[in-house]
Amino acid sequence: MIAQQSLHRFLDELAGSAPTPGGGSAAALMGAMGAALVSMVCNLTIGRKGYEGEEAEMRQTLEEAEALRQRLTAMIEADVQAFDGLMAAYKLPRASEQEKTSRTHAVQQALKQATDVPLGCAEACAEVIELARRVAPIGNRNVISDAGVASLAAYAGLRSAALNVAINAPSIQDADFVRSRRERLDQLLSRCADASEQAYQTVLGRLG
Amino acid sequence: MIAQQSLHRFLDELAGSAPTPGGGSAAALMGAMGAALVSMVCNLTIGRKGYEGEEAEMRQTLEEAEALRQRLTAMIEADVQAFDGLMAAYKLPRASEQEKTSRTHAVQQALKQATDVPLGCAEACAEVIELARRVAPIGNRNVISDAGVASLAAYAGLRSAALNVAINAPSIQDADFVRSRRERLDQLLSRCADASEQAYQTVLGRLG
Repeated sequence: MIAQQSLHRFLDELAGSAPTPGGGSAAALMGAMGAALVSMVCNLTIGRKGYEGEEAEMRQTLEEAEALRQRLTAMIEADVQAFDGLMAAYKLPRASEQEKTSRTHAVQQALKQATDVPLGCAEACAEVIELARRVAPIGNRNVISDAGVASLAAYAGLRSAALNVAINAPSIQDADFVRSRRERLDQLLSRCADASEQAYQTVLGRLG
Repeated sequence: MIAQQSLHRFLDELAGSAPTPGGGSAAALMGAMGAALVSMVCNLTIGRKGYEGEEAEMRQTLEEAEALRQRLTAMIEADVQAFDGLMAAYKLPRASEQEKTSRTHAVQQALKQATDVPLGCAEACAEVIELARRVAPIGNRNVISDAGVASLAAYAGLRSAALNVAINAPSIQDADFVRSRRERLDQLLSRCADASEQAYQTVLGRLG
């Protein structure tokens, strides 16, 4: 399990000449860091004097952030598995016509999987951005920069995941599949560009 | 050492109710991931057919990216130490006038340190973005999305580091210090907004 590796080893493997872990795992880790930082802001707001009015919302947000952190942490690994599945499909034999047909089918299935994993990462990152935007105006001011970092990390995770969708899409033959994923991604990207900027500006305003 | 911890444990501690590790360490890790992904693109371009003409530039870039990765990885820890130093200064006794004076001095010194650590992170992230922009048009097309992710991660690291400068600046009495740091940061932010977007668009263009 990658998440059991040390940061040092993870970074070494990211930098190394194996194609995995790569940008897809980095995207998931950025999202997971975003979720973790939302949790931290909640944890340092709950029970603090002056923030009693935010308690219920902070508890709810913490629960959601922790669920997202779990999902995104699992995606660090899922991205590697999807890539390995694709490589395995490409290596299937193609001597006979029947082999060619079943290899093409396997490659297409693996490409779809390698698209839906980063799309799921993008969805989860978008949810983290919403949580960061929620806590930015009401979280403990002493740690509010962390809500801004949460939003930045999750937005970078979302845009990174989008690149990982884009790299596979041109090889997928199912035009409806590609169109539906691209549409979903475009929705997420345009909604979150504004949401993450809003969270960032809210935080900047509270720091000044 | 935080970098020796597992990703799981790092994320747990990021989410937890201790103020460190926090957004400053997350910023450094984003920068380090960016540097690692630039290295990966170099490693998967060097020696590949069709990329012979880029070999020298890729080798040079790899060397620079690995040095930046090392610097940024060390900053994951340095940010925690700077924060701990600040907390220790705040806890100094202030019963007598002499104690008050030396506490104020210690706090001001610690605040400067807690500003210069994220500023150093911002500088290093800016350098990673330049490397990502350099490899985006010439790196191995099969892994070029990783150059885009590198740029996104480093830019999020830079903006996150900026928030960590902003949270301390209002408490620093030395106006010249604050002005010089803000100016430097503004330069980095405006230069890198364009540079990172350019790297991203170059990558998108090569994927489509």
